[in-house]
Amino acid sequence: MEKYSGRPVSFRQVDLTGGFWQTQQELVRNVTIGAVYDRFEETGRFEALKGEWREGMPCKPHIFWDSDVTKWMEGVAYYLQKQPDQRLEEKMDMLVERMEKLQTEDGYLNSYFSTVEPKARFTRRLDHELYCAGHLIEGALAYYKATGKRKMLDLTIRYIDLIDRAFRIEHSAAFDTPGHQEIEMALVELYQFTGENRYKELAAFFMEMRGRSQKDRENSKEDPVSFQSHLPVREQKTADGHAVRMLYQLCGMADLALLDQDEEMTAACETLFDNVVHKRMHITGGVGSTYLAEAFTFDYDLPEVTTYNETCASIALAMFCRRMWLIEADHRYADCAELALYNTMLSGMSLSGDRFFYENPLAADPVRDRFNQSRKENLREHLPILERVKVFECSCCPPNLVRTMGSIGDYMYSVSGNTIYAHCYMDAEAQISLPGQEICLRQRTDYPYDGRIDLEIGTGGRYTIAPRIPGWCASYRVLVNGEEAAFDLEKGYARLERTWQEKDHIVLELDMPVEMIEANPKVPNLCGRVAVMRGPLAFCAEGIDNPDLPLRDIRLCMDSAFVVSMEEICGRRLSVLTGKASVRKDFDELYRICRAEEEDAAVKMIPYFAWANRGITEMNVWFIRR
Amino acid sequence: MEKYSGRPVSFRQVDLTGGFWQTQQELVRNVTIGAVYDRFEETGRFEALKGEWREGMPCKPHIFWDSDVTKWMEGVAYYLQKQPDQRLEEKMDMLVERMEKLQTEDGYLNSYFSTVEPKARFTRRLDHELYCAGHLIEGALAYYKATGKRKMLDLTIRYIDLIDRAFRIEHSAAFDTPGHQEIEMALVELYQFTGENRYKELAAFFMEMRGRSQKDRENSKEDPVSFQSHLPVREQKTADGHAVRMLYQLCGMADLALLDQDEEMTAACETLFDNVVHKRMHITGGVGSTYLAEAFTFDYDLPEVTTYNETCASIALAMFCRRMWLIEADHRYADCAELALYNTMLSGMSLSGDRFFYENPLAADPVRDRFNQSRKENLREHLPILERVKVFECSCCPPNLVRTMGSIGDYMYSVSGNTIYAHCYMDAEAQISLPGQEICLRQRTDYPYDGRIDLEIGTGGRYTIAPRIPGWCASYRVLVNGEEAAFDLEKGYARLERTWQEKDHIVLELDMPVEMIEANPKVPNLCGRVAVMRGPLAFCAEGIDNPDLPLRDIRLCMDSAFVVSMEEICGRRLSVLTGKASVRKDFDELYRICRAEEEDAAVKMIPYFAWANRGITEMNVWFIRR
Repeated sequence: MEKYSGRPVSFRQVDLTGGFWQTQQELVRNVTIGAVYDRFEETGRFEALKGEWREGMPCKPHIFWDSDVTKWMEGVAYYLQKQPDQRLEEKMDMLVERMEKLQTEDGYLNSYFSTVEPKARFTRRLDHELYCAGHLIEGALAYYKATGKRKMLDLTIRYIDLIDRAFRIEHSAAFDTPGHQEIEMALVELYQFTGENRYKELAAFFMEMRGRSQKDRENSKEDPVSFQSHLPVREQKTADGHAVRMLYQLCGMADLALLDQDEEMTAACETLFDNVVHKRMHITGGVGSTYLAEAFTFDYDLPEVTTYNETCASIALAMFCRRMWLIEADHRYADCAELALYNTMLSGMSLSGDRFFYENPLAADPVRDRFNQSRKENLREHLPILERVKVFECSCCPPNLVRTMGSIGDYMYSVSGNTIYAHCYMDAEAQISLPGQEICLRQRTDYPYDGRIDLEIGTGGRYTIAPRIPGWCASYRVLVNGEEAAFDLEKGYARLERTWQEKDHIVLELDMPVEMIEANPKVPNLCGRVAVMRGPLAFCAEGIDNPDLPLRDIRLCMDSAFVVSMEEICGRRLSVLTGKASVRKDFDELYRICRAEEEDAAVKMIPYFAWANRGITEMNVWFIRR
Repeated sequence: MEKYSGRPVSFRQVDLTGGFWQTQQELVRNVTIGAVYDRFEETGRFEALKGEWREGMPCKPHIFWDSDVTKWMEGVAYYLQKQPDQRLEEKMDMLVERMEKLQTEDGYLNSYFSTVEPKARFTRRLDHELYCAGHLIEGALAYYKATGKRKMLDLTIRYIDLIDRAFRIEHSAAFDTPGHQEIEMALVELYQFTGENRYKELAAFFMEMRGRSQKDRENSKEDPVSFQSHLPVREQKTADGHAVRMLYQLCGMADLALLDQDEEMTAACETLFDNVVHKRMHITGGVGSTYLAEAFTFDYDLPEVTTYNETCASIALAMFCRRMWLIEADHRYADCAELALYNTMLSGMSLSGDRFFYENPLAADPVRDRFNQSRKENLREHLPILERVKVFECSCCPPNLVRTMGSIGDYMYSVSGNTIYAHCYMDAEAQISLPGQEICLRQRTDYPYDGRIDLEIGTGGRYTIAPRIPGWCASYRVLVNGEEAAFDLEKGYARLERTWQEKDHIVLELDMPVEMIEANPKVPNLCGRVAVMRGPLAFCAEGIDNPDLPLRDIRLCMDSAFVVSMEEICGRRLSVLTGKASVRKDFDELYRICRAEEEDAAVKMIPYFAWANRGITEMNVWFIRR
């Protein structure tokens, strides 16, 4: 495709009709939305919007609560977009009314600063004020688009205009750029919706001042790398600091690069994408290798237990990838987005839909955890929790899951000129606008459990369909109406250009064998080990399925001959692997002269995202390669 | 041997005549004693004894400084025992004079409490007051025995009598037992020297009140497991809490068990020894798997990098073993003592003798360390340092090394009835008292670099010599005057009973092949891996010797065919191994489908104790087993 020519196809144009993601989306509609609402209600997050909190009262508003609420509202709006729900809409309207009352004369709108520290507005770079404003924009736009109700959008615009004056025009704020990036991409969305150039200019101001502002340096004395303020964004070559901030920044960078066809900004995005994907990402699409500041660390540092791998970080990584494929269709972006979505994002939520992980480690050791818990708090190491919980104090991930599942259709298609790119496969029907024609496309697939994707043409015409051949797929067939089709493979997309007839079928047969994956020898802790993947799914073994095996001692050989089957676990139909392995015979000594005594064992694995749904149990992703 | 019949053979009866330990001992005499003196002088540790510090002055005395000083004095005394040194003796006398002035009317003697918090004496269980008193006893006895000068001993006895009244007789102290064990074994030594039963009673009081005292519980609110106060010592079944405290406690327990032929106390010692050695000890004899409270953790938790493995803990482990073999000669005690002494203890000191490690990890990753150092302090993880330093703030290890090297001959022999047990082999000449006869024995050996030990009888007579066959040794010969000798093997000791003639030679030929060692499958991080040992020495590979190899990716096969040679490194003659290994060919991808592409490599290893003497470089002990 011609660079910078991509246009998104919104989830609004896509209806899931079955398969993996419909199940997931329905779960969120039926369970998660309400579960998150209840927790937010209990913790006072909605109450805070009333602006009635006073010193001494319980449930003191927190600096990021507004963003939790508006992220949840954004997610709800995506569901309302597809299916009206009066009770949900009433809740939304009630929240908007609170916002209206909370908003001050001059347009300011933030429950924390309005009630707790009214004199501190626009003075604390690290206190999430602009981050909350960004999520407000996204929630307001989503709600307006879903319902046509303008109130939330109008008050948001008043607030953003105040921000624009304080930061970009009058420079009266005590800092220049947000301590937690997010508003940049939201401003681009507001610009695209309103056509008002000042929002794009504000986004660009926030982006370009980062790493250059003396005011920022004086305002925030913490480690500037943590919030990517050590260098101007165009000069950043490695993904450093807080992972979600880094990746939200990259979303904004990619948005601006696309709008302006900005080669330098694009190069910065590509460099950082490469750094993440080639040197700093777990096989599960998890990023942020340390809990210390929830941050990226250094190349090839991919610890399994102490890694952070925040659910939000993988969501942000997928969001970044989706923007990059608009700049240039390259299968690597959708490959990465799938890893992030199918593994770490989904691991962030229980199969029951109401419990959440913030951290998503690649191994779990209940023995270590129990010991750690038994110690006094000041003697504990930081370990990820082993069971999902209903709410976190810092609760960004649950509503982020709601909004991402609600708009998952965003990841299916983009267009460029007369070409439809099919990125991530889902069972769905889409209405896609090409120049001068509206195309209906239907996908039928059991992806990611099966590699067969059936694309049915709903609208004839001359255009190109370019389905993605995933990077993990070494062998595949592309059939048109049952016959092998000729195509050009361009950066992993099979370009099929012809005059399509209604009811033509494109069938992709992606061979999806179980593969043993090795990591680069520069990753110290993964040397000598293999992970098991099938398609975009990473698999893990859990103690509960392998009660007699020392999970970390399981040896897989190249002919482990995994059998793939479907099994219902916790009410969900999941792909399950069983294969041959070996373990050492147990012995008593702590150390002994090495003997070649192994015994055969059968190992059972489930998709990584489904771990920790059956109580606290050992879990492992990387095994010994025999 | 008959249980409880063992008697030690002091280093005073042993003169090193060459070999490994003489080199080591001379280094300490020529370098370490002075190096530690200089650091202590600079930091004000000696000055503190004047008792002249006042608020606002630099070098505020610290609660454990007295113990640093008296541990150094104890070490110096051991050297003076063997070889007079007027300058050193003058320094010692100067320190004793300061102590004399510092001591109050009633006998109290502690530089911290006397100058910084005079009203707090005997009120703070966790402030090392009794620990310092214990080291004072050991230093005083050593100095008296070396020089016959009584002043230090006399003032110590005055102080201990005060302690005895405050704790055991009048119960006027605010707690019952020391927060940091040590004084128990020192009191036994004082009892044995003076014959005064009250010192043994005080030792027993401190030992038996531990875990039972209500006063202790009220006085120290911290985690009682950290200082082994969660249970009476006889009921402790696992080695928990601060490693040095645990092991010093065990020294005292073993001392009392031996004195009283106390079966219950012995059983507690044996249970705890087994727990350490079978479940909580690194292959280097390092113990204390976490820096958090410098503590033991849980069974099979043996992390390589984050382990603490304090130098002092391994010294304490060896001290405990030496006591246990008096209760019952079992080769397992000396096996363990050798692991601790030859690996972790020696790792605690540079080959140059003037730099020290407190922590002794089994792997070093300069890349991780560099990243960690680059972060702001509050964002750093705890990692062990990668180069030894001249002094620590908490400087227990350097003087502990001085006193242990000075008295290393303690580890050679014990007697029981008419039997001489030879535990650890060193090139030395000993004068050993048996009932009614004084026996001279000469050992000639290049142990641990060679398995041949030549024991020459210096004094004829009828007695039994029982040299130890180490647990690591699967094949050996015992020759008397060149002929294979008959012997009973009793718990790993080859009992040779006969009428010896002067100049008889017992030659042990212990086969000392290079062995690949595997750890129990329950140690998660060591699954699939092997360590390389030869005799009691663990080996490691360093980046500086293997510049082109990814150390963590080195695969050793069972026929790695290591060649043993001697090499001079940093002026020291060391045993070096070179062998065949393989590593994966380098590749670019972070993840890829596993390929069986390895290339041969030659790997060079040095004894673990000699690591980190040539700058900061990667180090590894556990390798992948091919």
